[in-house]
Amino acid sequence: MTQALRLAERGLYTTQPNPRVGCIIAHGERVVGQGWHERAGQPHAEVFALREAGEQARGATAYVTLEPCAHYGRTPPCADALVAAGVARVVIAAEDPFPQVAGRGIEKLRAAGIIVESGLLRDAARELNIGFFSRIERQRPWVRVKLAMSLDGRTALANGESKWITGEAARADVQRWRARSSAILTGGGTVLADNPLLTVRLTDQPFTPPLRVVLDRRLRTPAGSHVLDGTTPTLIMHAASARITDNRFDQVERVVVPEQGDVLAVMALLAERGCSELHVEAGPALCGALFAAGLVDELLLYIAPLMLGDCALPLMYLPALTAMADRWSLRAIDQRRVGQDWRLQLRPGSA
Amino acid sequence: MTQALRLAERGLYTTQPNPRVGCIIAHGERVVGQGWHERAGQPHAEVFALREAGEQARGATAYVTLEPCAHYGRTPPCADALVAAGVARVVIAAEDPFPQVAGRGIEKLRAAGIIVESGLLRDAARELNIGFFSRIERQRPWVRVKLAMSLDGRTALANGESKWITGEAARADVQRWRARSSAILTGGGTVLADNPLLTVRLTDQPFTPPLRVVLDRRLRTPAGSHVLDGTTPTLIMHAASARITDNRFDQVERVVVPEQGDVLAVMALLAERGCSELHVEAGPALCGALFAAGLVDELLLYIAPLMLGDCALPLMYLPALTAMADRWSLRAIDQRRVGQDWRLQLRPGSA
Repeated sequence: MTQALRLAERGLYTTQPNPRVGCIIAHGERVVGQGWHERAGQPHAEVFALREAGEQARGATAYVTLEPCAHYGRTPPCADALVAAGVARVVIAAEDPFPQVAGRGIEKLRAAGIIVESGLLRDAARELNIGFFSRIERQRPWVRVKLAMSLDGRTALANGESKWITGEAARADVQRWRARSSAILTGGGTVLADNPLLTVRLTDQPFTPPLRVVLDRRLRTPAGSHVLDGTTPTLIMHAASARITDNRFDQVERVVVPEQGDVLAVMALLAERGCSELHVEAGPALCGALFAAGLVDELLLYIAPLMLGDCALPLMYLPALTAMADRWSLRAIDQRRVGQDWRLQLRPGSA
Repeated sequence: MTQALRLAERGLYTTQPNPRVGCIIAHGERVVGQGWHERAGQPHAEVFALREAGEQARGATAYVTLEPCAHYGRTPPCADALVAAGVARVVIAAEDPFPQVAGRGIEKLRAAGIIVESGLLRDAARELNIGFFSRIERQRPWVRVKLAMSLDGRTALANGESKWITGEAARADVQRWRARSSAILTGGGTVLADNPLLTVRLTDQPFTPPLRVVLDRRLRTPAGSHVLDGTTPTLIMHAASARITDNRFDQVERVVVPEQGDVLAVMALLAERGCSELHVEAGPALCGALFAAGLVDELLLYIAPLMLGDCALPLMYLPALTAMADRWSLRAIDQRRVGQDWRLQLRPGSA
């Protein structure tokens, strides 16, 4: 199953909106077929593995990182293919939460007399598709907020200057996190201050370009902003009251979000559109609003060995605390040096 | 010499105001004597090593982490002892910058026909006595500022509450840094807000208690404060204009510092009093004043996995920057996990 997970990982940057899935077909220790899902619309992992195994699939064990599908989507059900190939046993890491699958894949296999076990390396399999599970089970994306800060927790000077706090290695690392995401979210303020591209610059790796999303309540995004250039799918979210007086939004899609509780609405809307992992690169207001609303699932914090002083911009605007007991606790799931900077990966909750 | 340095380290917490020194006496690979300086007033490393070597010192090589002394202090000159014992060769890591030694130890040995080499592992030897070298060469202590902060760079809530940001392991770790210091400096504001003990709580290790120093310009330290309890030597520094109206300072020493440039005066004064490593645990005003004045030699930064929000107190008050090029760069000399927290050890300058 570890091998199957490793195969699944090859789809990290390309399967969107599908999950990353790997499959190994083996007789004992001898692997006779392997496959992984590469791109939506193309065959699933099981199909590739069965093709490679050919006649040797008969009587074999299939290791699949996610429960095989039982429905006709863009491709026929993988459960049927496994039955047809005559595999004797199917070992599944994680059950598929997708309503059209959810146990039916397992039922179909068992009905055909195949021995089915499930739960082997389930945590690792769920982690690999953490956004997919979040979207299906919670109806919102897995929200990963990336922030680059100084030692004193500052993200930009008072005048907005933020280029660059972290070094090249950290900035290159961020490109990989962007690439695995379904969408990249920022706020109107960041577009005004930094005019970011919000695209992925990766040359060594194919990827599915993430949707650019700007929460720009009052439609302040100026004409000529990179996010309006139409080079990659872009969604501008704004309040119903915002008025459009020119054609600067012609190349992008727009959608209205409610003025109250808009961050929740943004999440529901993105999940509906198939957004699994949402990568956030925004200013202290939007990041703080997401964090205070309990919508930040993961913090990707790059810390540079420098000081900017207390006049510089804070990491996030958060409600004032009056007691230490009310602090927001996080637990680290990874920490490492990236060039001259540090990268901490944290999730809410205590260790 | 690595062994001699390891011996020297045994005096880390006790030699104040003397340097930490280790000595190995050997014939080739065979060690015949070893010693280290433990406490001021007691014999130096060379004397212990020569005692252990006895007659075997004759014709041997002595490895000493610091140039042997050539003057009569509280103990007779070690250079004379090495000559008398008949050692053939002396290998020195670092030259002693102390005006009464400064090359005279080496001269004395050479005059007696001993082969002297110097500079082996010099950097490591200087690092071990970084405060001693700072005090003698720069006439100011090595200033190590300890700060405990949240992920968003906050050291206390707006109401001053700061107990506790970091966990037990980090707080225990701080005790060892306090213990190796000659003095612990804080500001009047911290005494008012936290009423700290500023003592060392270490049970597994003897240590020389560091001097408690409070920069309390206007003598706001209230009666009953721990720092006024007379249990450990304490120095209150204040402006000439501050008035004393009661007996609350009777158990401590007081000294006047100029109102302008007082942080520089504090450093000169502490160096004069034999302070080698100065450990600072203070609020954002004093830490910022020291940092902005270029007086912070080392930052010991504990980062806890939690958020306190932008209303909480900043790491340091520093002058506003208008260009990223003016940022204060530091370089990391150590990083590690301490319990659930991280500890970064940084020094000014680029990597």
